Amino acid sequence: MVLAREAAARPDAIRRHNLGLLLGEIHRDGELTRAELTQRLALSRSTVGALVADLTALGLVVERVPTGGVRAGRPSHVVGPRDDGPYAIAVDVDVTRVASAAVGLGGRVLARHGSLAAGQPPTPRQVAEQIAQAVHALDDLVCPGSWPVGIGVSVPGTVSSRNDVVEFAPNLNWHGEPLGAILADTVPNGLPVRLGNDADLAVTAERLRGAGRGSDDIVFLMGRVGVGAGIVANGRPLSGHHGHAGEVGHNVVDPSGPRCHCGKRGCVETYIGEKALLKLANRRRPPTSENVAALFADAHRGDPQAAVAVRAVAKALGHTIASLVNVLNSERVILGGSLASVFDFATAEVSSAVSEYAMTEGHAAVQLRTPGLGSDSPLLGAAELVFADLLADPLATRASAESLIRP
Amino acid sequence: MVLAREAAARPDAIRRHNLGLLLGEIHRDGELTRAELTQRLALSRSTVGALVADLTALGLVVERVPTGGVRAGRPSHVVGPRDDGPYAIAVDVDVTRVASAAVGLGGRVLARHGSLAAGQPPTPRQVAEQIAQAVHALDDLVCPGSWPVGIGVSVPGTVSSRNDVVEFAPNLNWHGEPLGAILADTVPNGLPVRLGNDADLAVTAERLRGAGRGSDDIVFLMGRVGVGAGIVANGRPLSGHHGHAGEVGHNVVDPSGPRCHCGKRGCVETYIGEKALLKLANRRRPPTSENVAALFADAHRGDPQAAVAVRAVAKALGHTIASLVNVLNSERVILGGSLASVFDFATAEVSSAVSEYAMTEGHAAVQLRTPGLGSDSPLLGAAELVFADLLADPLATRASAESLIRP
Repeated sequence: MVLAREAAARPDAIRRHNLGLLLGEIHRDGELTRAELTQRLALSRSTVGALVADLTALGLVVERVPTGGVRAGRPSHVVGPRDDGPYAIAVDVDVTRVASAAVGLGGRVLARHGSLAAGQPPTPRQVAEQIAQAVHALDDLVCPGSWPVGIGVSVPGTVSSRNDVVEFAPNLNWHGEPLGAILADTVPNGLPVRLGNDADLAVTAERLRGAGRGSDDIVFLMGRVGVGAGIVANGRPLSGHHGHAGEVGHNVVDPSGPRCHCGKRGCVETYIGEKALLKLANRRRPPTSENVAALFADAHRGDPQAAVAVRAVAKALGHTIASLVNVLNSERVILGGSLASVFDFATAEVSSAVSEYAMTEGHAAVQLRTPGLGSDSPLLGAAELVFADLLADPLATRASAESLIRP
Repeated sequence: MVLAREAAARPDAIRRHNLGLLLGEIHRDGELTRAELTQRLALSRSTVGALVADLTALGLVVERVPTGGVRAGRPSHVVGPRDDGPYAIAVDVDVTRVASAAVGLGGRVLARHGSLAAGQPPTPRQVAEQIAQAVHALDDLVCPGSWPVGIGVSVPGTVSSRNDVVEFAPNLNWHGEPLGAILADTVPNGLPVRLGNDADLAVTAERLRGAGRGSDDIVFLMGRVGVGAGIVANGRPLSGHHGHAGEVGHNVVDPSGPRCHCGKRGCVETYIGEKALLKLANRRRPPTSENVAALFADAHRGDPQAAVAVRAVAKALGHTIASLVNVLNSERVILGGSLASVFDFATAEVSSAVSEYAMTEGHAAVQLRTPGLGSDSPLLGAAELVFADLLADPLATRASAESLIRP
């Protein structure tokens, strides 16, 4: 339960705070009755009524009588997000595709923009142009009256603590790219832009609404072309001193292992990344999501070369998980990207390698999970970057959004 | 600055809280003037005066006129710990020795009890007996009138979250040993007992008064016979879901590496632990502190076999540090136990291996340090386990201590 504050000393600041809290409850858990809101916020019924009226007037929520079910007495109205309310433009940049979506309050995907596969990793300017196109395309797809409140971008690399520069995205070959500034120039109406690391955003989204619910010690291990971890420890994101925590992909696990594009040998990525998987299956194809999906489909159909490759990755994945869990003693590890498919196909191999390499004496083994949000975890985490601003101050965000709406 | 509370609703609870805060300031920073205490606690002068009078009556602090220095006006009295005040019995259990000390408020070592080297790793009962002897010996060594408030024990293994069972101490060959209960039976006057992992306690002590001051993202990498890490992230101890975080010693860094006593091959410990160091120097001796110290002395004197061994450990140490920092993005790594001597002898080799293996693009390299508290970090961290109870409620601890004092 989140305790709200009754209006007293600074009524305006308290009202903004409480509006954010109430909207946050609806954002996290969906439709709630006024009675539930009153209980959760520990405020008076009349205060909650006034807050709901404010949020309704701001176009953020709508009250309705629930349909279905027969209950005695006067039905309690439920308060939920509006279909034509605010939305986040969420973008998931990966090496072979840029996927975008309009995400409404409550984490609902309202519309998607077709992802674009490129032969080469995209440049920051190409990504910015694709996002600009997505902003327009999504605006046409959402309900009339909806308005965008910002752009959240997930990138497969480390992001500056100011959330605007991609410090290092090795598989995109980006080094210190000011993607935030480039986007601010490219996107027509000056929407606020926030960047985040894909695994960090994925663990945020999964903890809010997916396989991380209820745990305070989680690792989201993201495997795409590159490999990275998003960490929650003690119930808080572990971002590290410069915001670069979780860069496990270039930890060397065997100094005589395969050569990595980073210059070292035997990096985690050369064992469990998508390129490694394709190479182990002897497939000389680019690591697009289609090629990777085809490999897993073949493994499930009984293709021995594909199956052997997935099992080899599974074993190395178990070793990687164990090394992380030995350091972090996480309760739960969520496997994302192609690692989810590895785990689905070769659960026993992953679990057995975890047991082999992990120190588990005196406590239960770590829980292994696939994402509750499917492949959308980084995308929905990127939306949360935008919603964080909205929830911090619903009044300010609406005011600034109004100045952005096209004439 | 720590904001204290002016007495209002529950005067007794607030008084206890404020007594703890004031005592905590003196514990952390030593002697302070009443003016400094008034400013730090943001309380009135009269309230601080009353709190100081309370702590003086409890025998916890003493006020005195500072000697030396000539200043105009009335000298401000300083408040500091009493020489004959409370002390913690701090114990540092390692594979080849059990070192004990009486530690006063402010982290001052008041007396030490000779450590005992054993041919075999001690059993829990042997450790308990040595601690019982230390309790008596230290009582004879401290100022008359001093009184013990509890026993804090550092162990080279994982400790249950209830702080009373050693779950797993591989180099002691302990598995699920109820050392807390054994000690409670063995120690004559029923002093409260708290256990902690050596590296976890070391990082606590170093952050309070040593090389970790001022940083919120620290790893203390402890190298003795075993290897473990104590982690502070976001300014808080990272203990993990079961309290077992930091068990990096059995992470496998080369599956074709040397066989480890844990059954695996190529564990971190087989590269940078004290047994590994002695073996690399071709010395078939037990890993006592004397034998390890002799090896470093020989390396400094130019013994080529010793120097080569230390340099080999230095390189592996750099790799271990980099793998930890890639995951945690710590600001500072403190090297303890024999790893401090490795770093002192082969600083360049350690730093160069860290650079080779760490992802540092876009941010400064990690800061490498040796402990500010020398080899006492785990011992002083163990004392903090005891002081935590005292600072939480100075009134209760004194009351219970009085019931424990021998008739």
